Amino acid sequence: SSDSNLIRATLFPGDGIGPEIAQSVKQVFSSAGVPIEWEEHYVGTEIDPRTQSFLTWESLESVRRNKVGLKGPMATPIGKGHRSLNLTLRKELNLYANVRPCYSLPGYKTRYDNVDLITIRENTEGEYSGLEHQVVRGVVESLKIITRQASMRVAEYAFHYAKTHGRQRVSAIHKANIMQKTDGLFLKCCREVAGKYPEIVYEEVVIDNCCMMLVKSPSLFDVLVMPNLYGDIISDLCAGLIGGLGLTPSCNIGEGGIALAEAVHGSAPDIAGKNLANPTALLLSAVSMLRHLELNDKADQIQDAILKTIAEGKYRTGDLGGKSTTTEFTNAICDHL
Amino acid sequence: SSDSNLIRATLFPGDGIGPEIAQSVKQVFSSAGVPIEWEEHYVGTEIDPRTQSFLTWESLESVRRNKVGLKGPMATPIGKGHRSLNLTLRKELNLYANVRPCYSLPGYKTRYDNVDLITIRENTEGEYSGLEHQVVRGVVESLKIITRQASMRVAEYAFHYAKTHGRQRVSAIHKANIMQKTDGLFLKCCREVAGKYPEIVYEEVVIDNCCMMLVKSPSLFDVLVMPNLYGDIISDLCAGLIGGLGLTPSCNIGEGGIALAEAVHGSAPDIAGKNLANPTALLLSAVSMLRHLELNDKADQIQDAILKTIAEGKYRTGDLGGKSTTTEFTNAICDHL
Ligand SMILES: CC(C)[C@H](C(=O)O)[C@@H](O)C(=O)O
Ligand SMILES: CC(C)[C@H](C(=O)O)[C@@H](O)C(=O)O
Repeated sequence: SSDSNLIRATLFPGDGIGPEIAQSVKQVFSSAGVPIEWEEHYVGTEIDPRTQSFLTWESLESVRRNKVGLKGPMATPIGKGHRSLNLTLRKELNLYANVRPCYSLPGYKTRYDNVDLITIRENTEGEYSGLEHQVVRGVVESLKIITRQASMRVAEYAFHYAKTHGRQRVSAIHKANIMQKTDGLFLKCCREVAGKYPEIVYEEVVIDNCCMMLVKSPSLFDVLVMPNLYGDIISDLCAGLIGGLGLTPSCNIGEGGIALAEAVHGSAPDIAGKNLANPTALLLSAVSMLRHLELNDKADQIQDAILKTIAEGKYRTGDLGGKSTTTEFTNAICDHL
Repeated sequence: SSDSNLIRATLFPGDGIGPEIAQSVKQVFSSAGVPIEWEEHYVGTEIDPRTQSFLTWESLESVRRNKVGLKGPMATPIGKGHRSLNLTLRKELNLYANVRPCYSLPGYKTRYDNVDLITIRENTEGEYSGLEHQVVRGVVESLKIITRQASMRVAEYAFHYAKTHGRQRVSAIHKANIMQKTDGLFLKCCREVAGKYPEIVYEEVVIDNCCMMLVKSPSLFDVLVMPNLYGDIISDLCAGLIGGLGLTPSCNIGEGGIALAEAVHGSAPDIAGKNLANPTALLLSAVSMLRHLELNDKADQIQDAILKTIAEGKYRTGDLGGKSTTTEFTNAICDHL
């Protein structure tokens, strides 16, 4: 196929194990003949004044232009006067919904069977406003901001997702018994949207109770939608049920049809460069990017190969109790294509 | 024994199943010969202007005078112009630390074995400040308040608890990577107190990661100390690991040596009055009250009888898969005394 038939996508390999797992994605994609051309961008070594962070303006422009990208782990450099890389991406690209599917991997045993959950997290406001100050010495406050606009947007995304993915139920997670105004507004928006989807069961669950029910009976839930911090917490809890963040994909949806898929685990500096990292989370995130591009055949093919490789258990990386290198595991996936 | 040898304790049976499970505690305590005289107080039917809630001033005075109490579930009546019953108790009695032990019950199988965790929750501030307002239409904010005074107080309680209960490790749970000022102050206080307890291992764990690790390997943790909302969430998650809030005790520690033990589950109106409720959480909370009073022999005796009854499995209430009534289960405990 000629270059003009290729879809351009931005790739942020990221730090630590990032480049190795990104290499795995590139290998699997080319094995599968995915018509994507990567535009690789690395985190800069100096603060870019236009982004106030180590992310370069060019890399953000690349995502804006391509409207689709894949991101490895990024460790925010320590020091003052700049913004976290992850938060900069969310803010600058207006990535308003973070979608984290979480399902049991066949053949990889945890305490839970048949987990199948979708966490949809509001990704731009709430407890992540960055508005904090010291009132007097020894008294500090943080502002949690909830807006109708962002709540409607993520609620609409969640119900649309549920409908188009054959899901039955949307649970709005909140603490409106305590934060009546902020979480109350979030719920009001969810209810309003729920009214437009009579075929989807809608319920509201208090976050503490939700966590208890998730560890007791995850199958009580289906799609969960919630403000930013609760999404951060619940999505990690759900990942824990099926084995951890090394196995769960994530995709950020932005205004104007942008999709930035990402592995949400850390950069694991201790094993970086040693060919030991598990690329599963980034591979599955790349699959979700393909679905966003409606390359569903390729997505199915690659996802099947990943799941088969893990299920067979012959080639597994150390985090899953195996002895394989990243390369061996990746080769095994390619053999299944 | 004459009345003057009896310790007076306040009892709030509470609503719904409250009176039945409180009856169970009274029966077990008298069977075991616990030298306690209960002062029973019910939630009022009108708002008491001195408490701005349905709790009467007299009932608060009773706890202040006795310095020790036990509380069943209280359903806050719906409507405006009054405060939640639970929050009123915490505020008025300055119940600054909420201690929730959570351990696997021998013979009652869940997905987790050998869970043994203590959650210590700051109970007066944080996200529960009640300070919220609408900035403009469609934009609302809630204030999270963290103070040095409350953070030091709960950190000191947690380390003192760890030391006096033979615990090895205290983990401070936070999201200071996002809320650098509020959670940052909380951590600073924990670190300061940790410095005075070199024999206790101190670590800091981000809340999302903590939830993931708790569902994967709860034995990584021991005592956990945290701001209010995180405590609300984590303590319910931990309860879920061992079977739910029907099985976990809780005790609130207040200024001036007050201890108010409580069952934190709901009032279960659907089964109220039917002799079906499981009194375990309230019984174990009552045991923690006895330990607070240093009636350790009685506490051990009653706790053993409860655990044996559950372990044998002959008498279990419906929530644990059994068919026993509250009375049958309570009688079985008394038989083990
Ligand atoms: C690294 C951190 C700022 C981030 C968050 O809190 O959102 C991470 O936990 C995540 O979930 O992507
Ligand atoms: C009922 C509710 C206000 C309360 C809380 O949020 O603290 C409850 O969940 C608890 O943990 O005691």
